Amino acid sequence: MSPSGIITLTTDFGTGSPYVAAVKGVILSINPRAVLVDITHAIGPQDVRQGAWTLAETCEHFPQGTVHVAVVDPGVGTDRRIIYAQIGQQHYIAPDNGLLSRLALRTRPSRIVTLAEPKFWLPRVSHTFHGRDVMAPVAARLSQGIEPDELGPRQGGLVELEWPEVSILPGKIQGAVRSIDSFGNLVTDITDEMLAGAPRDERVHIECDEHETQGIFRTYGDQPEMTLLALVGSGGFLELAIVGENAAAMLGIRVGTPVKITW
Amino acid sequence: MSPSGIITLTTDFGTGSPYVAAVKGVILSINPRAVLVDITHAIGPQDVRQGAWTLAETCEHFPQGTVHVAVVDPGVGTDRRIIYAQIGQQHYIAPDNGLLSRLALRTRPSRIVTLAEPKFWLPRVSHTFHGRDVMAPVAARLSQGIEPDELGPRQGGLVELEWPEVSILPGKIQGAVRSIDSFGNLVTDITDEMLAGAPRDERVHIECDEHETQGIFRTYGDQPEMTLLALVGSGGFLELAIVGENAAAMLGIRVGTPVKITW
Amino acid sequence: MSPSGIITLTTDFGTGSPYVAAVKGVILSINPRAVLVDITHAIGPQDVRQGAWTLAETCEHFPQGTVHVAVVDPGVGTDRRIIYAQIGQQHYIAPDNGLLSRLALRTRPSRIVTLAEPKFWLPRVSHTFHGRDVMAPVAARLSQGIEPDELGPRQGGLVELEWPEVSILPGKIQGAVRSIDSFGNLVTDITDEMLAGAPRDERVHIECDEHETQGIFRTYGDQPEMTLLALVGSGGFLELAIVGENAAAMLGIRVGTPVKITW
Repeated sequence: MSPSGIITLTTDFGTGSPYVAAVKGVILSINPRAVLVDITHAIGPQDVRQGAWTLAETCEHFPQGTVHVAVVDPGVGTDRRIIYAQIGQQHYIAPDNGLLSRLALRTRPSRIVTLAEPKFWLPRVSHTFHGRDVMAPVAARLSQGIEPDELGPRQGGLVELEWPEVSILPGKIQGAVRSIDSFGNLVTDITDEMLAGAPRDERVHIECDEHETQGIFRTYGDQPEMTLLALVGSGGFLELAIVGENAAAMLGIRVGTPVKITW
Repeated sequence: MSPSGIITLTTDFGTGSPYVAAVKGVILSINPRAVLVDITHAIGPQDVRQGAWTLAETCEHFPQGTVHVAVVDPGVGTDRRIIYAQIGQQHYIAPDNGLLSRLALRTRPSRIVTLAEPKFWLPRVSHTFHGRDVMAPVAARLSQGIEPDELGPRQGGLVELEWPEVSILPGKIQGAVRSIDSFGNLVTDITDEMLAGAPRDERVHIECDEHETQGIFRTYGDQPEMTLLALVGSGGFLELAIVGENAAAMLGIRVGTPVKITW
Repeated sequence: MSPSGIITLTTDFGTGSPYVAAVKGVILSINPRAVLVDITHAIGPQDVRQGAWTLAETCEHFPQGTVHVAVVDPGVGTDRRIIYAQIGQQHYIAPDNGLLSRLALRTRPSRIVTLAEPKFWLPRVSHTFHGRDVMAPVAARLSQGIEPDELGPRQGGLVELEWPEVSILPGKIQGAVRSIDSFGNLVTDITDEMLAGAPRDERVHIECDEHETQGIFRTYGDQPEMTLLALVGSGGFLELAIVGENAAAMLGIRVGTPVKITW
């Protein structure tokens, strides 16, 4: 798989953090031709789960051979590993703390390598910023076409997180809100495939907290303003939205709130 | 007009939204050499007017042949059109909902095309994310030099928004605050040209809400800290600022507040 | 020093400000091959000191020959100068208001030039946006390899800010919190070198406001959640953190708060 030359960054450093720029400076010092793309730096501080969902939804849109660097790393400087993983036709560099585990649920990594060769790192590695000192230089070298097996020994699997299971019964599905997007829409962990047997009209009832709506629509404009509506979003997951408004703020709903569908 | 290879993005997705990254991934998958520039992703949710002003002020600074993609799209998935427009020496892709109408007020579009050829879109188009599924791939192809008329049939005009008119009388101009910049400065819809007949010294009075100031200055440093002052900003519009402070926050003034100038 | 082709931007325009995009448009109109990297646009409005610290910590990670543009410019349009400085192997363009003075404390600029040749600026220079009209076009030309001495006459030094001094006595160091990072960690102006004589174990006491901790650790994971701990951060400065939390918010500590170390 030849490198695309693109390196993406996903971190919890905060939008506008100069730490992100330090990572970019290190990468460009090694590969001045790397094309850098920010996925987001607004992952909640140390929120590995949110990072895992974001990677799973976004990385697939990038060209084959892209290098994705993900730094949500509460264990920096402890004995947690940093890994390289090939998943599908893309390269990933991340701490082995579950960040890659949503991606790995869908597509089994074809190779996982423990980063162990300091010759590919910065000469001086801090205890608190491995994104800059280890992951950035390794990503730069991957974007130049280095063979991943040079980075260290293979390992058999990666750290998994427990994800709440969606319960699927005849006429009843129970899942949860798993993220809230920038419009305040409530994105659930219920996929379009899980909904294959459900009608889309008013016979289907969706409950979230004490709120309820009927029918699964195609798009936001299918209902009047201020209406709570359900639809299958662009990532293939059921979401709940209030037309023209921020549903999360208006209803006070958070990640983890159960969502029940019956018909 | 040969393409500059640059594609800009203006959306209401929110700073740090991974939706922006999905758009970039799609573009780079088609044209890996595209140069991507964020104009802003902080347009207020579904605030087409703010988007229209932002495009009108910013896009002119880019090279000829740049492709500007604007996604503020409350009607996504309904029957609103998505259009290509050539305005001056630049290309635009946007929903036909008024987003391009401030640009078009100043320079009449030389060509408007309805996007109608699915072969230039992603193979599977969602109902809720045409920025990623339609606009991104079309922008990528425009940046590679595709002929805009291949995208669909021409249409005669674009959707216009009503913009409040500035009233210009001898010795009196009345307009309004039309945007608030990141420093809290109140940018009005009154241009330098409209002010051609007005003196710049203390004979000119500017009123906004119950606040008043005299004189039109050259720059912020021309008055002491904490003073309300008027000047013609870098975009050619009259603005009101409090030196060293956030005028909008301090005075509680919002977009739409009338501004009256007399001399 | 041949140009790297990279131009970084550090401003107080606010994340998502279209003013940043205008600067980029101007640069790309002159040098379409420039590689643009945002350091941050989240410097507090007109906070020249924060800008100065950010540049000092971040710019060194970029390749030789990078052009760094810094715009925190409360005096725009007054008689403050705009300067070019070569510091180490990097180029800087900034208002001469102290923004470069933390960099200059560590490495004496080898050349400082007053920008005075309008032929390198935009044809029409506003009074309020020299970042776009003067600094952007000059940076673009530097990235193309223009000789800095063409920009104007040399000047002997640059404007310095007063920085609080760290007091170093046997068994006692007194400094201050000088910035707060995006995780809420309190970064002080006390360097690793100043701490050379201090033990790292529980014999060393660190006080900040009414809060106290003992020992200087290697990394955040070395103490349990919710513990106040001290460590030397990735930039080589002592910092105080609460494991898993935002220390600044939780303790109500601001930039300038004294930090005392005794052993």
